[in-house]
Amino acid sequence: MKQHIYCRHFFECEIPFFDVDALNVAWHGNYVKYFEMARCAFLNEIAHNYNDMREDGFCYPIVKLQVKYMRPARFGQKIRIETQLVDFESKLVFNYTISDIDTGEKLTRATTEQVAIRIDNQETQFIIPNALQQAIKQYQGFQAA
Amino acid sequence: MKQHIYCRHFFECEIPFFDVDALNVAWHGNYVKYFEMARCAFLNEIAHNYNDMREDGFCYPIVKLQVKYMRPARFGQKIRIETQLVDFESKLVFNYTISDIDTGEKLTRATTEQVAIRIDNQETQFIIPNALQQAIKQYQGFQAA
Amino acid sequence: MKQHIYCRHFFECEIPFFDVDALNVAWHGNYVKYFEMARCAFLNEIAHNYNDMREDGFCYPIVKLQVKYMRPARFGQKIRIETQLVDFESKLVFNYTISDIDTGEKLTRATTEQVAIRIDNQETQFIIPNALQQAIKQYQGFQAA
Amino acid sequence: MKQHIYCRHFFECEIPFFDVDALNVAWHGNYVKYFEMARCAFLNEIAHNYNDMREDGFCYPIVKLQVKYMRPARFGQKIRIETQLVDFESKLVFNYTISDIDTGEKLTRATTEQVAIRIDNQETQFIIPNALQQAIKQYQGFQAA
Repeated sequence: MKQHIYCRHFFECEIPFFDVDALNVAWHGNYVKYFEMARCAFLNEIAHNYNDMREDGFCYPIVKLQVKYMRPARFGQKIRIETQLVDFESKLVFNYTISDIDTGEKLTRATTEQVAIRIDNQETQFIIPNALQQAIKQYQGFQAA
Repeated sequence: MKQHIYCRHFFECEIPFFDVDALNVAWHGNYVKYFEMARCAFLNEIAHNYNDMREDGFCYPIVKLQVKYMRPARFGQKIRIETQLVDFESKLVFNYTISDIDTGEKLTRATTEQVAIRIDNQETQFIIPNALQQAIKQYQGFQAA
Repeated sequence: MKQHIYCRHFFECEIPFFDVDALNVAWHGNYVKYFEMARCAFLNEIAHNYNDMREDGFCYPIVKLQVKYMRPARFGQKIRIETQLVDFESKLVFNYTISDIDTGEKLTRATTEQVAIRIDNQETQFIIPNALQQAIKQYQGFQAA
Repeated sequence: MKQHIYCRHFFECEIPFFDVDALNVAWHGNYVKYFEMARCAFLNEIAHNYNDMREDGFCYPIVKLQVKYMRPARFGQKIRIETQLVDFESKLVFNYTISDIDTGEKLTRATTEQVAIRIDNQETQFIIPNALQQAIKQYQGFQAA
């Protein structure tokens, strides 16, 4: 079943030297940073970033991460990360596709799941807090317009 | 269906300060390092580590990573990583379970999949190379004895 | 004695979440990455980056690093890194000054020293290789013009 | 002038695969982690670690870092870090020497300086807080005994 994509956002960066391993490719664990940079850029875009979340009283730890590595990335390679928001009801679920900026070749796919936790009592929320839901809906309207 | 566990290995370490994020817990991306340290310790144990693989003409890039985060880990927390080898025919598949050393509480579960690639022609192998298969089988005999 | 500044270059970036520690500030070790990103951006600018160096037969390991931390940087803070080339005769020496983009406040100062090593025989060079010297001189002419 | 060494402590570890760069040596920025692991092991030993510091109301940010890289370290290399406490009056100053465990060869030398900051008002202290001074003096007595 195809997932509905609520919003889509693009983030670009370059593989730094310090992310490359002895096999001359970006070490697989470093991609988690790329996904987070892309996700944070999206949250900035919808004007509800990690700082806003904290002020709203919530944090959103990652509870699940899945990555499929298809092709390696090398030092200096320019990559584009497409971030798709596919769920924001009970969890915040993002899909990511990394591709080479020049060739468009798909390199990596990933999914992250986050739950909301109230900072004061550490209780897991079963519904994504309203402030984040509103920020997403406003941005959706903006993207649809 | 339950997976067959060919070998099992334990690795212990402590969450360092530099792995902890602004929420006072180990940042989710840092667990990929713990899995690699545990996997490398296992490969040392069976006497076929990354250096041996390279001399044998192969590298084993990660093609899939799945992590399920159940409980956070904090600075100075002592963790045990159980590494289970569950496949070594066409892919090298490991399951990992991280638990707190003191309480035994399960914190994180993960799976990695690696394929063998011949270094000289960059060809993906559909069978795990013989030298690694032998090393695993010898270790299995040793564990069973 | 004041050092002569041969070239000067500016690089901007933002403190990512994963670089911030339990004290809510960028962990001190992560600045080494910012210096390298700034240095690599400069080397791209003069058209003699790490890949060009390797093709020219040399690598340039860091032999000395000095950092003075004056003010902390926080998640999402936008920083500017001024990179100054202050020596390229026997060593490649860069000074770095990180400041807050919005306020201009100086946050961190650093210096790195690199020597050239011939990749084929691993011999340390006592003079910076000609190809790099030329690239720097061309860029200087360009900056002076 | 030779510095007085108040305490000395040894920490051992192994260069992990993910710390090694495209030149097959530990990337220079990763040493900052080794120094911190060694320093934290020392602070555990004197029973006044980062958690104790925080409970005592202070944090100790690094204000200065100097590293001299003499020889590279490679994947799987076993290293010993000698940590020497050389000042704890107005600043906390440590010297570090990394050597190869097998050959004893010196690889890297470093120094870090930390100041104490009161967490509640963010004021820099001009004297190292008493609780840390006491912990060090007790350990010195223990080492001298």
